[in-house]
Amino acid sequence: MTQRYKYVLEEKDLPTQWYNIVADMKEPPPPYRHPATLDFMKPEDLIPVFPEALIAQEASTERYIEIPEEVQDVLKMWRPAPLYRAHRWEKALDTPAKIYYKWEGVSPAGSHKPNTAVAQCYYGKQEGLRGFATETGAGQWGSALAFATRLFDMECKVFMVTISYHQKPYRRIAMETWGANVVPSPSTETNAGRQLLEQDPDTTGSLGMAISEAIEYGVTHEGYKYSLGSVVNFVLLHQTVIGLEARQQMEMAGDYPDILIGCAGGGSNAAGLIYPFMKDKLDGTKPDLRAIFVESTACPSMTRGIYAYDWGDTAKTGPVAKMHTVGHGFVPAPVHAGGLRYHGMAPTICALLDQGYAEARAYHQNVCFDAALTFARSEGFIVAPETAHAVRAAYDEAMACKETGESKVILFNASGHGDFDLAAYDAYLRRDLPDYEMEEETIQIALQDLPKVPA
Amino acid sequence: MTQRYKYVLEEKDLPTQWYNIVADMKEPPPPYRHPATLDFMKPEDLIPVFPEALIAQEASTERYIEIPEEVQDVLKMWRPAPLYRAHRWEKALDTPAKIYYKWEGVSPAGSHKPNTAVAQCYYGKQEGLRGFATETGAGQWGSALAFATRLFDMECKVFMVTISYHQKPYRRIAMETWGANVVPSPSTETNAGRQLLEQDPDTTGSLGMAISEAIEYGVTHEGYKYSLGSVVNFVLLHQTVIGLEARQQMEMAGDYPDILIGCAGGGSNAAGLIYPFMKDKLDGTKPDLRAIFVESTACPSMTRGIYAYDWGDTAKTGPVAKMHTVGHGFVPAPVHAGGLRYHGMAPTICALLDQGYAEARAYHQNVCFDAALTFARSEGFIVAPETAHAVRAAYDEAMACKETGESKVILFNASGHGDFDLAAYDAYLRRDLPDYEMEEETIQIALQDLPKVPA
Repeated sequence: MTQRYKYVLEEKDLPTQWYNIVADMKEPPPPYRHPATLDFMKPEDLIPVFPEALIAQEASTERYIEIPEEVQDVLKMWRPAPLYRAHRWEKALDTPAKIYYKWEGVSPAGSHKPNTAVAQCYYGKQEGLRGFATETGAGQWGSALAFATRLFDMECKVFMVTISYHQKPYRRIAMETWGANVVPSPSTETNAGRQLLEQDPDTTGSLGMAISEAIEYGVTHEGYKYSLGSVVNFVLLHQTVIGLEARQQMEMAGDYPDILIGCAGGGSNAAGLIYPFMKDKLDGTKPDLRAIFVESTACPSMTRGIYAYDWGDTAKTGPVAKMHTVGHGFVPAPVHAGGLRYHGMAPTICALLDQGYAEARAYHQNVCFDAALTFARSEGFIVAPETAHAVRAAYDEAMACKETGESKVILFNASGHGDFDLAAYDAYLRRDLPDYEMEEETIQIALQDLPKVPA
Repeated sequence: MTQRYKYVLEEKDLPTQWYNIVADMKEPPPPYRHPATLDFMKPEDLIPVFPEALIAQEASTERYIEIPEEVQDVLKMWRPAPLYRAHRWEKALDTPAKIYYKWEGVSPAGSHKPNTAVAQCYYGKQEGLRGFATETGAGQWGSALAFATRLFDMECKVFMVTISYHQKPYRRIAMETWGANVVPSPSTETNAGRQLLEQDPDTTGSLGMAISEAIEYGVTHEGYKYSLGSVVNFVLLHQTVIGLEARQQMEMAGDYPDILIGCAGGGSNAAGLIYPFMKDKLDGTKPDLRAIFVESTACPSMTRGIYAYDWGDTAKTGPVAKMHTVGHGFVPAPVHAGGLRYHGMAPTICALLDQGYAEARAYHQNVCFDAALTFARSEGFIVAPETAHAVRAAYDEAMACKETGESKVILFNASGHGDFDLAAYDAYLRRDLPDYEMEEETIQIALQDLPKVPA
């Protein structure tokens, strides 16, 4: 056998620029609105919250943005990340499809998340910040920021949803190993937290509550700002290193994808892989390219939500964005894919869906683990529950090829490993994993509290 | 900055031959003896236990042994593994030393263990075996074999020490995800297990007990044999891909190591890195090359045991080997580095120590975590507790360079990640980690039951 399994790049092949899709969109997403006034927001309104360089990136319409050398230097700790041809999985599925995946599990934090954490820390440090505050659910984002702040000699304050803090101690410990200060949220360290605890001393917390605490902590502590791990443009921008590398690697493999796939909670890993290829669809070079964003039926913002302005957080303190949403007040069922439990979606992804450039689909968790199990038993890697959604979509597309006999080229993003999520595999293997589907009535209720923006 | 952080090889650079150090040793280790008669063992005595191709490798004196293409093909799933220059750690330690490390944590099972698991499964399959039985303590070896058997469509029976089975469920789940059948040991599935349970129904098990069960299961079940993850020559042979790759990568880096370091329980990862360089010391090309094997003070076979024939397992069913031992009946304290709790050591390593070609040293676990923490906070990677022992030795050597001002080249093997060992980091961070040192009296007692071999 002389099959080639993976395509590796040298450090010198690391992209030196990020790709900003806004430059190529026929119609970029409409501007953010102010959380209180609902007027269009001025960039300077965000200064208390985010580093200024990131606010500038958020508003940028430049096609390419330089990756600072110091950021490249840290990314080189694990990047370029390998791209795999899934020969063994193809064989197991007996499909004529050619399946490729980009493996982001090689980062120290085990997912794609450090790609933006590192960039955010660089700009924060440049601005003279002492530290960042953030929220985390299952802990994938929190651990990425803990890792990145440490490398830039910054402090890191993580508000971790109380129930996860107690149920998923390993990610908490990883954050502490990198030096972060992690507290269960709601905590007594913020007004928002104290108020929530007063209302319900036994609350197990939610991501919405943790966001409120993190923003408050970030804007009220000297030398601190707030750091966000998905949804906004600058985060998606930083993740485009994934797709920019993958383009080079697909070229090495002599293939070009027919179908691109990524799981999407806020959308950053999927966009990171897909956008640098989407460029070819937007400019007409590859009109037939398909891009599939995959979500959970427990939180079906793209497939069952509406496309409207909504607040990004429960406490209504962040910017109001036009996006596919199931309502900022919605608390999704406890699926193991904690990263897919966000009520909204990145505005650029939503605009691309709305304009017909991309597709969305939702899966129950059991069918995702079905596919992830065949993947683990062929390719070796045990992927995160979020990633399992992308694996399922790739599986279905490969099976469709088996039906039609077509040898399509499928590329998906394997966004992270499942080392900290094995309890989910255990439940699955013991047939003890419930499926969740958001009920129509719940959506209707959740959508009643959308902001009334001027027409 | 144009520093280079890692040296990556292409799949085409994967070694095609293993290196067998026996060919170059001035005096190879003396032959095994039969566990019952204590006479020298004939290779055919091992046929019920191991695949015949492996028995042939065990006895081979050929310098290079071909790696079958199918084995190379599986190794390519994660190999060649990257070699890193620890620029950030060097800076943090303020040392003139140049520190390199080979990163074996990229394998699907998260350690170097699959290097031999894959080879053993290949030969087992060739011989027509249906499956392998093995034992595992913390689960690093068991998960490697579970992964490898699956790829060769074989069955895997793992006897996991009862206390680990319950305390470390994540590795058990990983094994099950790859399709292995895992039972707590002692179990009711073997005579050995039933007998042990009769003697003490509440026993939490030991590695010695689990080995007895696995050998019994392997030799009494149709189509099964037994698989071992360290100590014997053929396992160390399979691990030499580590050092063979590292030689190429050090050449890319333009350096040659002054000091080689690996942690050693049975010795396979350390030998895997060190032996392909040790060749240069044995043939006189690099007389000053230092090789340091690092163990735990809780199980100090090399630093405080004696060099004598001893049984490899508690039940006295495996071959009797001349090695550094603290006695086959010794049950080490529960240090988190479960892989360093073996009473003996690979016979080839022991011979090299005895002949003055290598050094050994032992560390308490807290100083190892001290060093692993500085490593995680500089290099990002959170290593396994076993690997932390190698990290500590590298730290000490780097600090010695700081004293003398020498810029020595240090290369150590980062044998695995610590994703499943974060409870150990938690205990360490909370200053709740005891140090253990084997007591002199205990060693004397443990050594009273050595086999009385003919002079």
